[in-house]
Order: sequence, then C-alpha cells, then structure tokens
Amino acid sequence: MEHYDIIVIGGGSGGLAVAERAAPHGARVAVFDPKPLGGTCVNEGCVPKKLTWYAAEHMGQARQAGEFAVDVDIRGIRYGELAERRQKLLGNLNDFWAGHLEKLGVTHIAERARLNGSDRVISESGAEYRADRIVLAMGGAPVVPPLEGAELGATSDDFFQWTELPESIAVIGAGYIGLEMAGMLRSMGVKTDVVAMEDRVLEMFDPAISAALDQHMEHQGIGRHLGVKVAGLGGEPGAVTVQLEGGQELGPFEQVLWAVGRKPATADMGLEEAGVELARDGTTPVDEWQATNVEGIYALGDIIGKAPLTPVAIAAGRRLAEHWYAPENDPVPVDYEQIPTVTFTHPTAGMVGLTEPEAVERHGDSVRVYETSFGGLDRAFAEGEVPPVVMKLVCAGNDEKVVGIHMIGPHVDEMLQGFAVAVRMGATKRDLDLTIPLHPTSAEELVTLKQGRPGRAEGLAEAA
Amino acid sequence: MEHYDIIVIGGGSGGLAVAERAAPHGARVAVFDPKPLGGTCVNEGCVPKKLTWYAAEHMGQARQAGEFAVDVDIRGIRYGELAERRQKLLGNLNDFWAGHLEKLGVTHIAERARLNGSDRVISESGAEYRADRIVLAMGGAPVVPPLEGAELGATSDDFFQWTELPESIAVIGAGYIGLEMAGMLRSMGVKTDVVAMEDRVLEMFDPAISAALDQHMEHQGIGRHLGVKVAGLGGEPGAVTVQLEGGQELGPFEQVLWAVGRKPATADMGLEEAGVELARDGTTPVDEWQATNVEGIYALGDIIGKAPLTPVAIAAGRRLAEHWYAPENDPVPVDYEQIPTVTFTHPTAGMVGLTEPEAVERHGDSVRVYETSFGGLDRAFAEGEVPPVVMKLVCAGNDEKVVGIHMIGPHVDEMLQGFAVAVRMGATKRDLDLTIPLHPTSAEELVTLKQGRPGRAEGLAEAA
Repeated sequence: MEHYDIIVIGGGSGGLAVAERAAPHGARVAVFDPKPLGGTCVNEGCVPKKLTWYAAEHMGQARQAGEFAVDVDIRGIRYGELAERRQKLLGNLNDFWAGHLEKLGVTHIAERARLNGSDRVISESGAEYRADRIVLAMGGAPVVPPLEGAELGATSDDFFQWTELPESIAVIGAGYIGLEMAGMLRSMGVKTDVVAMEDRVLEMFDPAISAALDQHMEHQGIGRHLGVKVAGLGGEPGAVTVQLEGGQELGPFEQVLWAVGRKPATADMGLEEAGVELARDGTTPVDEWQATNVEGIYALGDIIGKAPLTPVAIAAGRRLAEHWYAPENDPVPVDYEQIPTVTFTHPTAGMVGLTEPEAVERHGDSVRVYETSFGGLDRAFAEGEVPPVVMKLVCAGNDEKVVGIHMIGPHVDEMLQGFAVAVRMGATKRDLDLTIPLHPTSAEELVTLKQGRPGRAEGLAEAA
Repeated sequence: MEHYDIIVIGGGSGGLAVAERAAPHGARVAVFDPKPLGGTCVNEGCVPKKLTWYAAEHMGQARQAGEFAVDVDIRGIRYGELAERRQKLLGNLNDFWAGHLEKLGVTHIAERARLNGSDRVISESGAEYRADRIVLAMGGAPVVPPLEGAELGATSDDFFQWTELPESIAVIGAGYIGLEMAGMLRSMGVKTDVVAMEDRVLEMFDPAISAALDQHMEHQGIGRHLGVKVAGLGGEPGAVTVQLEGGQELGPFEQVLWAVGRKPATADMGLEEAGVELARDGTTPVDEWQATNVEGIYALGDIIGKAPLTPVAIAAGRRLAEHWYAPENDPVPVDYEQIPTVTFTHPTAGMVGLTEPEAVERHGDSVRVYETSFGGLDRAFAEGEVPPVVMKLVCAGNDEKVVGIHMIGPHVDEMLQGFAVAVRMGATKRDLDLTIPLHPTSAEELVTLKQGRPGRAEGLAEAA
C-alpha cells in the first residue's frame, strides 16, 4: 500500500497550501481531487466572480462617465465572449497548479477519495493509501433546499457555466454571495430581484453597511423582498416563479438562483466511520492547529465552520505545514477575531473586527462610534440623489482601541487591507488621528473622523 | 487699530485650519486673502485636479472595457462642460468656507495684506491691524523660469482655466504635478510629451516606481525627453517650440505647460523688514510648533519648505491651534518622516517612509526589500504586454521594521492610507505577514510578499 507523510483530500485553497508548504521540506504528499486543481476559489468562486465583477464595473463606470462630460455609448456586453475568456483563464490556473505540484514533487491523484479508518483513504477506483497525517479539505457546495420545484433554480456553480445572461432573475438569499451575484447581474442589465428570509441585506455586516447597500440596490433598481420565506419554485424552465409562504407568488423569472448558503462536503466521506466528530451542520470541529478529535486527522477550510474564506484556508494550511516542518518560523494559529473581509457588491463593502452591536455586547458602555456618510467626489456631478459612501469606526475602552471598521463605497476592497494590519496591531483612534491623510481620497475619511457617539446595541439600521 | 488674537495671512488649507480650530475656543481671528477661500487645494490644486482625473479615468476605463467584452463607443469628452461643472463645484467650496468662517465668527478680509512689523499687518487699502499672533500661510505659486519666450508657456493655474483641450502639449517637468497633468491630458486624447531635466520620472519616489510609471507612459504613448535642459520657448501662441540646450528643438506644440516646481509666496510680504528669516529659496524656517525666528510670527503650509501637501498644512494648522487653545488634547507636532503621499498619475502611485536608496543610506546592510510586479486581474484579458503593478516593502533591522512602502497601480491612492497608519505604529514585516489577506485584491500582495533581498543603494531603476 502506497504510504505518504501527508494525504490531502481536496485540491482547493487550503489543501494546496498545506501541500505546497510541506513538500519543500521533504514531505511526501498526495492530493486527491477529481476536479481541476484550485477548488472553489479558482473554479466557482473568487476568481471567476472577480472577473465577472470587472465586467459589471465597466458597465457601471460607463454609465457614470457622462457625469464628467465623457461621451460613451454603451452597446452592451458580449457575455458569451466574457464567459469564454474567463473559462480559459481558469484553465490556466488549473494548469498552473498541476505544474506547480509536479515541480514540488506532490502527487495529484485525480480521483475522489474517502477515509478508510484513521490513517488511510480509499479512492473511487478502490486503491488504498496510507498516511501519517490526513488533511480533510473538501470545501463546500451551494445548498439547494429540499423544497418543491427547487430543481428549477440554479446555484452559483451553475451561474459560472452560463454563456448568456437571462433577462430576469430572482436571487434567493441576501448573504454576500447572493448580493454579489445580484449586483453583477443588475449592472450587466438583467432585471434582478433579491428574495430573502433576512430582514436586511448583508446581515453579517454592520447594520449601517446593510442600510447603505440597500440604498444602492434601490438606486440600481434591484428589487428586495426581505423577511419572507420561500415555499418552493413553480412554473417551468425559463419562466420560474417563486412561491412564498403565505401564498404570494413572485415572477416569473427567466432564472432563479439559490444563494442560501453553502454546506461542508463532509457527507459520505467515511468521517463518521473513522470516528471523526461532525457537528449537526456537517462541519468538523478542530483545535487551533486544525486537529480533529482523531489523532492524525486534520481539517481546514470551509468544512470547519469558521470564516469560510480562501485566504483563511490558505493561512491555516500554510501555518499548519510550518507548524509541522518549520517551527523555526514561529508560525501562529489563525486568529479568527480579526479577519478582514470584503464583498464585491456594487459598490464594494468591507469589514474587520466587530460590528457595532457585537462591540456593545462585548464592551458595553465603553464603546464609542465614529462614522461618516458622504457622496464621494467621483459622483460630485451626478444628478439627483447619490447613495452614500459610509465609513464607521467602532472603538472600545479608555484608549479607544479600534475593535471594528466598516465601510461601503468604491474601492473599499483595496482600502481595507492596510487598516486590517493596523487593527491587528492594536490601533487606537489616536493612531488613526495622528496619521497624515491622503487628499483627496475616500480613505482619508477614516483618519479624520470626529465627534464620536456612544455605541448602540440595536435600532442601528434605522438610525444609519 | 483693530486687534485680533490671531491674524492669518492666506486663506488656504493651512490658514483656514488654524482659524477653524482656534475660533471655537473664543479666539478672535482674521484671515486675509483677496482670492476666494480655499487656497491652492480648492482653486488650482487637489480638487480641480482630482475632478479632471476622474474624467481622464473614465476615458481610460472605457478604453479597457472591451477586454471584458463590454461594448462601448468612446465619442470623446466635452471638455468645456467639464470645466464649467468643475468651476461651479469650486465656487461651492469657496462659498462653504466663507459661510463656515462666518458661522465661527472668523473675520475674512478679502484683501492682500503684508507684515508691518512683528505684531501687525497692513492691508492693500492701507488699513493696519494688530495681533498677538500672526500666522503666515500664503502658500506658493508655479515657477516660470526666466528663460527666453517663457511667457509662451502656461502653468497649472492656467491649465485649470482652460475650457478646451489643446491637440498637443509639452509638459516641462517630471515631478508629480507635471506627470499628473501629462497623464490626464494623454488619457483625454491630447498628444503629450514630457520634457525634463531629471533622468527619471517622479524622481522623489522610489526608483522602482519611476521605472514602472515610465513603462505605463510608454504604453500610453506619452513621449519622454529626460535628462535635457530647456533653454527657452519659441514659435508663437498655438505653435510653441521647446528649445533645448545644445540646440535641439521640440515641437511645435499647441500648448506648453511649465511644471518645474512651485515657489513660496514670501516675496514682498514685509517678512525681511520684520526680521523673519528666509532661506535662499524663499522658504521660512520654523520650529516644530511652526514658530519663525520672530516671536509671535508663525508659518505653515507650502512656505516652510517641507512636504508641501494640503493634509500636512491642515495637520500643522489644527495642531498649532490645539497647542495654543486645547493642550488637553495632547497635540503633537507633525512628524515629517512618515507622511504618505500619492500621485494621481495614470495609474496612481503612492509612498510612505523611505525609498530603498534612502533606507540603505540610513540603515545600511540591515535593509531588506520585498517586492512584486504583476499584471493585475483587471487587465487579465488585455492583449499584448501590460505595464506592471509594482509594490515594494522596504524593511530595516533585525525585526524587519517597515521603513518604506512604495506602490503603483490602480487604486493605490485608496490603498495606502491604512498601511500608513500601520507604518506610523511601527509595523514589522511579521505584522503584515500575520494579517489575513483580502482575496482577490491588489492590496493583498503587500501582506503576502516573500523572499526578500538585501537593499541596494543604486542602480535600482535598471534592475526594477
């Protein structure tokens, strides 16, 4: 039986990170994945999403060019061509990873594999492999709820296979994936409605950001049907209706997109049989160094139920490999408290640390909030009302330590990274105040905020 | 004779900042400025520049839209209309400041004034005013060198008065103002050449940034004539030639723009008579709290010869007012070591701290440099070669403290602010390494840099 130092199940961001960092130290590593290497991020996530977002941004920018007296005619988007270019680029990334692993001496076995006890896996074709350490990194997949007619709806995986745009769409779900999809589709000219159980869009974010994004969506003509429960889908392909509990029907829509969450790909993987603990939601609890309850079995990435983001999976994978093979680099476990995240909505939104209600819950009366809302110089010549750029600093304690930063507006995706470094270092309001602003930018607003107010636990969405 | 607590000469960013922060504490303040309030930043600097830059960006973006299969026709720019909108917005800012000062009880005297001894000023119309403290904040103006035919060239002040674009232009000077102008003009369709004494563009920046910007300029079709000396201008209005030392002639160009520096507006202001020390270049030396050598006379902003940037003048003005009236806020003097700055070139460039050669000069062998150069996902579908996005981290000492950050690429103007906070806080390479990246962005490259190399004192432009 073939024996490896490390077997990784899943060739996505997290699994590849372990392999890539362990192999140069002489570790014999095998990665099992039947699909092209790169996982969700490369194949159905970050990369195709961002590329599509650029196209949508171009259309959005072109619409605003006239404000600056720049005359452009927008004739539309050749979506099939975009899809083709995108697919080609993803193929290049798949190839890059294949070549990279080969160079590193990592074995890629293009088969599904499942645990077969605590120190071995068995591939689809029936071959058994043994390893000192097994890393579970299977990632996740979009949830399609078990509702009547659910199969009439597509998922984000399907979305990235489309070679033409529908005329109309209902996106079910108001989390970041649904809202990114809705924003892109609308900007590319699709009649778009968001249907969701949540009372506000982007519920994981600070209420002020939700409120501002809602204003932008209103401005863009994206319908929002919030606080409703979907009972099922009806109609037929190409003319799908959304049935709400209570009997209301929305649509028909040419397409319906399920964006109600992702589930960890831990089912039918031999985990239970090997004794690996699974939470009720299918996630695998791990300790700070990714160890499951079974010795020699580790888990990381989207299956552990914490911050399912590519860079987190990569950080976990790299640091784990260093923990094993390069302790002299003094790797530390991932700190889940201060993970910055951005959404490629229109406009982009970003956050790091605690939302205002979370901060009040944790730090009580010592919370002080600084915020601003403004039009943005890039929209100075827009006619009519312009939805706001919003920035909020959540501070706590006598030294006004920054415990949360929240923002929405153009380019906050690029703006947040440096602030995330500062927050991780323990920045206080004064550290921001004493930094010379860059003028005229949007980012400078974050270092020139004045007149804080006490933190509020609720009712923020209305007040924002 | 009217007596004030503070007389400010110059209603620009620095002067207004002092007035605005002192008045709420009950200080009686007068601001002298014959021009609409706001100074260079509002009238001939940051604001009109950024607004024009947005127009140029729209044209640049529209040109790239096709890469993402977005079909747009660029019909051109109605420059007169842009100029009109711009002018109207500047007028609004002037009015804002007039109203703001009035509300604060600050007297605006719309006249030129000059020192008349160490504790008083005299206005153009001959009235005398006395003050306990006089703040010199006259700012600067573009230099037109005393060369033959120099009057055939325009300045940046003139540029912002233009209501139509020339067909061709030579920009003399390769500092940030000249390069910003050149970038905007070229993007708006003007045939553009840069002519400069310096051997590289953006000489104040790190050589790697100069080299990359040069590549972008080449790609955009901006001619560069570097390392040459202009002897004078010839021809006639509308067909101006640039005479180089050695006899070569460039042009004719429809316009020529002088961008060879700015001089402090300290001449003929009664400074010498009042005993205020002036350096040979016309700047006024001050101590850390803006005091000149004459008791009761202070100076800030562009006339002090250090970091002539709006936010620096504002910070100096505000902190000075707090130093006088709100010491309980614990104001600290401006730290000129860690002033971030960005240029609105195409693309934007930014820096904070030391360039690589400066770092090597100061920290010797302990300098370690991390850098990356990449195409940018926004240009993933561009045909042919794409000029690079460049990011460079300059570290020093055993703990690899970050002493300089340098970057060029889309949105680095918004990216730099947070990193400037971190650098001011004493960030080390490890602080960056331990921050979770935001994917996929450009900014994440700064926290994922690998494989440093020793710092180099020279020859960097070639190596970059």
